[in-house]
Amino acid sequence: MEVAKLKKIRKALGERVRVLRKAKGFSQEEFAYECDLHRTYMGDIERGERNISIDNIAKIANALEVTLSELFDGLK
Amino acid sequence: MEVAKLKKIRKALGERVRVLRKAKGFSQEEFAYECDLHRTYMGDIERGERNISIDNIAKIANALEVTLSELFDGLK
Repeated sequence: MEVAKLKKIRKALGERVRVLRKAKGFSQEEFAYECDLHRTYMGDIERGERNISIDNIAKIANALEVTLSELFDGLK
Repeated sequence: MEVAKLKKIRKALGERVRVLRKAKGFSQEEFAYECDLHRTYMGDIERGERNISIDNIAKIANALEVTLSELFDGLK
């Protein structure tokens, strides 16, 4: 898989996290706290700048109260 | 989120990869090659022993010809 495609997926996941996080009424800082992740790390995630791992993806899905499948819904 | 819960998710994802990989008729070695990942790393993934990142998850979904959402289908 090309790097450009992988970056696109990171970006799409970050956008999805941002949309769902805002829909739950969390600020980025509050949400990072809920996920037990650092605030600046959460910013990086939402901008698609990190190769986030399954453990941290699971913490985010848990805080958003969605399944992993729902979190990835619509991502190609 | 508790470590036990995160481990359970890693295990469930590994199981899911194994089932879908076998359904496609790939040996673990062939499949690792398709994903551009190391054979021993793929074994670790299927046993839930790695905190796999989104880039590698995307490579696996791509080789399985499923969406990310489908890959996580049924995982809690």
